[in-house]
Amino acid sequence: MEGMSVENKHKIVVAVDESEESMHALSWCLSNLISHNSTATLVLLYVKPPPAMYPSFDVAVHMFSTDVITAVEKYGTDLVNSVMQRAEAVYRNFNKVNVERVIGSGEAKDVICNTVEKLKPDTLVMGSHGYGFLRKALLGSVSEHCAKRVKCPVVIVKHPHDK
Amino acid sequence: MEGMSVENKHKIVVAVDESEESMHALSWCLSNLISHNSTATLVLLYVKPPPAMYPSFDVAVHMFSTDVITAVEKYGTDLVNSVMQRAEAVYRNFNKVNVERVIGSGEAKDVICNTVEKLKPDTLVMGSHGYGFLRKALLGSVSEHCAKRVKCPVVIVKHPHDK
Repeated sequence: MEGMSVENKHKIVVAVDESEESMHALSWCLSNLISHNSTATLVLLYVKPPPAMYPSFDVAVHMFSTDVITAVEKYGTDLVNSVMQRAEAVYRNFNKVNVERVIGSGEAKDVICNTVEKLKPDTLVMGSHGYGFLRKALLGSVSEHCAKRVKCPVVIVKHPHDK
Repeated sequence: MEGMSVENKHKIVVAVDESEESMHALSWCLSNLISHNSTATLVLLYVKPPPAMYPSFDVAVHMFSTDVITAVEKYGTDLVNSVMQRAEAVYRNFNKVNVERVIGSGEAKDVICNTVEKLKPDTLVMGSHGYGFLRKALLGSVSEHCAKRVKCPVVIVKHPHDK
């Protein structure tokens, strides 16, 4: 896992993904938990989906093609950059935000819980569902699973337009 | 429901009950969401269990005794006072806390969700389980239910000693 050099100080993990909801969760966190605490560290956690979950590649045809593997890896990197850029657009308006980035890979609910167990943040903030390609299949289950399993306070934020 | 005259301003609902966990949730709220926001209103929501859930009364023997009904009502009032006093001991150390109290009656998960729907707070804070006599029977389900149903951000706080 990249970027795990976060020190043991007051910190808040925000799980971000491609969803608008996770950006709303980040915004809620900045407004409610970070803005008054200049010493807090905001840890942005993005979990790359496993390669099998990536769409748009015909892995049955090109299973062992180096080009396809490279393309899949690039696609994953592009996803990370895209999400982190969107996150930056949210937090750049807040002064004195110490941001660390952690990139995981695998099943979101497991990676999030394991990361929280390792980093021991003061709070975990996440959207109520989201999580990219798993969204439809596992609606709501990522946040539910994490809320049950992690020991720190968990904030579950819904998109304000959700019914 | 008593105490529903809360105005439409920035407010945070904390669901409190007899559990240590809910007092820890209140403390987390005060430290993380209220301390920097002197204009926020802290709404303490306590849900009285339905009379059928009260222990220590042999309702089979004294089903229609006025004395028992009075005693049950007094027991409910004592519970409210006890929880609110414990809550006050937590929040009295924080300056400038605007506190409102809402007392509901019925099934905790429904009353909490209905209260949130009515008051439209900015955030709901609650322990991960708790809820007095229902605790063992419905472990975890109150916060899970509320996290799914309410539209505002929900903070689920566990007791730090929970494994």
